[in-house]
Amino acid sequence: MRLKQCSPKYCKNHYINMKAPLSILKIGGKILSDEQKLKRFLKDIALIKGYKILIHGGGNEASQLCQQLGITTQMLNGRRITNSPTLEVVTMVYAGLINKRVVSQLQAYGCNAMGLSGTDGNIITSQKRPVNNIDFGLVGDIEIINSKRIINLLESGITPVFCSITHNGKGQLLNTNADSIATEIASAMTGDFEVNLKFCFEKEGVLANPEDERSIMESISKSDYPIYKRKGIISNGMIPKIDNAFLAKANGVNQVFIAKTEIL
Amino acid sequence: MRLKQCSPKYCKNHYINMKAPLSILKIGGKILSDEQKLKRFLKDIALIKGYKILIHGGGNEASQLCQQLGITTQMLNGRRITNSPTLEVVTMVYAGLINKRVVSQLQAYGCNAMGLSGTDGNIITSQKRPVNNIDFGLVGDIEIINSKRIINLLESGITPVFCSITHNGKGQLLNTNADSIATEIASAMTGDFEVNLKFCFEKEGVLANPEDERSIMESISKSDYPIYKRKGIISNGMIPKIDNAFLAKANGVNQVFIAKTEIL
Repeated sequence: MRLKQCSPKYCKNHYINMKAPLSILKIGGKILSDEQKLKRFLKDIALIKGYKILIHGGGNEASQLCQQLGITTQMLNGRRITNSPTLEVVTMVYAGLINKRVVSQLQAYGCNAMGLSGTDGNIITSQKRPVNNIDFGLVGDIEIINSKRIINLLESGITPVFCSITHNGKGQLLNTNADSIATEIASAMTGDFEVNLKFCFEKEGVLANPEDERSIMESISKSDYPIYKRKGIISNGMIPKIDNAFLAKANGVNQVFIAKTEIL
Repeated sequence: MRLKQCSPKYCKNHYINMKAPLSILKIGGKILSDEQKLKRFLKDIALIKGYKILIHGGGNEASQLCQQLGITTQMLNGRRITNSPTLEVVTMVYAGLINKRVVSQLQAYGCNAMGLSGTDGNIITSQKRPVNNIDFGLVGDIEIINSKRIINLLESGITPVFCSITHNGKGQLLNTNADSIATEIASAMTGDFEVNLKFCFEKEGVLANPEDERSIMESISKSDYPIYKRKGIISNGMIPKIDNAFLAKANGVNQVFIAKTEIL
């Protein structure tokens, strides 16, 4: 548990047992390729006071580049099957194009961001997903979050911006789901911070009817969730997102939101 | 001037006026796309003791991707004329593909590297090169190196790995010559470190005859340099490299080498 120390100027021996708040925001979907919407979102992020971490995907732009280069995109349950050329594309798009676009824009709004992948500073180690029925290829399941390094960055005034690339510590980069990264980082930081986790995307929230933006589900209980899945109300890419939300809650994250970017 | 403090365990009041050594290595050329050679080089880098910083280009791979995407590459005096699609390509290749490939390999060799562009942590601010006779497009000339942030990373055990992308602080990324970045970082660090700067590439060194790898010039004096240029002995991409070497020396860098990667 993080001990917030009083300023030594006023009090040398008194500690307050209080965690500082930390906002963790995951951004994905079409907003990343919409310059104006992205700018508005990042302006809001820059205004959030206190410690914050941003995690982004970039699947749409990666698929687009794959297409331009004649690489077939294969998806399964919202996860990208990643062969070697696809890994090169996602590394270029996530860690290069989108990460630096986001960071430079945050810098313009006065937020001292630093773009990182999991290999940078050895912050996120993962292992290649074992082949059971499906071989996802160069896809990583997270093993270790180096929370000390993240804390060190936060305390030096940095807002880390993570793309969804990790590594296995042996020289292999691995494509890793951005929702999972957000969840694992949020979980790892609960020992030191009061963590709020927000999954931001272009829809109004989790919708009972994907065609109707007003059909927002205000909350989802753990007991109702399997029913929604069975009925197909919650499906495809929303499933890992909600799995992650429940995991984060179970790991001590204070609040989890799944909502539109503009809500911030 | 950096004051190296004795360990307080042994000596509370005694300071030694001595700068710690810092190795700055710039790597470019074909080695970046040769997996085996790159690995050997990075293994050597990982073995260098003490503080170190790596800076890399990636022009060959960027040109290759440009070609695949049907973007024409225009070069002038070894500098890439950078329009908006070209900036996207170099950001993907330098900050994404190559930067993360280098960092993950260094991690595998036990070197805690962190890949960065100039926008990350606001470390390198540049301004778009003014249009005189030639419009280089989205190319940046370095204005400010945030040496405090670099020192902070070095002292926390990180080996920064910079790609050759900077920003103007207003949301614009800028393509920036990697030799210039190495030179400016080296110069900015001389106040705090004894800096050695090495420009590493695939040739044996600066050659009097580019076709003859044995024609290495052992040293080049400032007075002879204009003569070599006039005679065409030193030409093209070697000119900015040597200009940078002289600039680094003038700025207090201890030693500058231009040599083959294997020499390390």
